[in-house]
Amino acid sequence: MTDAASLKLKIQIMRGDEIAMGPGKADLLDAIEQTGSISAAGRALGMSYRRCWMLVEVMNRCWSAPLVETSAGGTKGGGAKVTDMGQNVLGHYRALQDHMTSASQGPDWQALNTLLLAETDTH
Amino acid sequence: MTDAASLKLKIQIMRGDEIAMGPGKADLLDAIEQTGSISAAGRALGMSYRRCWMLVEVMNRCWSAPLVETSAGGTKGGGAKVTDMGQNVLGHYRALQDHMTSASQGPDWQALNTLLLAETDTH
Repeated sequence: MTDAASLKLKIQIMRGDEIAMGPGKADLLDAIEQTGSISAAGRALGMSYRRCWMLVEVMNRCWSAPLVETSAGGTKGGGAKVTDMGQNVLGHYRALQDHMTSASQGPDWQALNTLLLAETDTH
Repeated sequence: MTDAASLKLKIQIMRGDEIAMGPGKADLLDAIEQTGSISAAGRALGMSYRRCWMLVEVMNRCWSAPLVETSAGGTKGGGAKVTDMGQNVLGHYRALQDHMTSASQGPDWQALNTLLLAETDTH
């Protein structure tokens, strides 16, 4: 374990009390895009199928069109794909994350970094 | 309940795996500053004394000097005050929050806002 200083940033897009987009949902969209199914995405992320479905349901009802489309499948269950709306939302969310990460690297973060107990120090 | 869109931002200053400063700890510092004691601060925030103490302990060991000083007291228990280091860290953290909130109000947030299901819509 290291004692290195870092800044963690969490951005949530809220619709009322519901989290329409956040770090977990964005990662899930990426995984669905890569694997083509909700169950495979869940396995890749170490998340239960039930939990993945819940996140997809919240996303699909918060935006003006669904972000994920599922198709009934054969013996292996159906596939899932990220819609154009999903790509659009995900793109803007990732761009916002990048922009905010850059914006955080200013003088206040530098000052805080200096004030943290250095790795080799002990009180 | 409203379905209005909003952006939630959480900034955590990490020292290794420990959260040296975050929204909850910043609010606790404010409350200690206002009330002059950890127990009164806990009551004001609806947090247990034990939880407040844990947060203070983490803060005090993560920075190069303690952020909160406690003094043994009389019948009513001791007081607590935010140190100069505490004021310094809190000031930079609040400035970082303000800066990041401004930085979030750009074109990506505007685009996401437009893509969210409008309040009056239903799928």
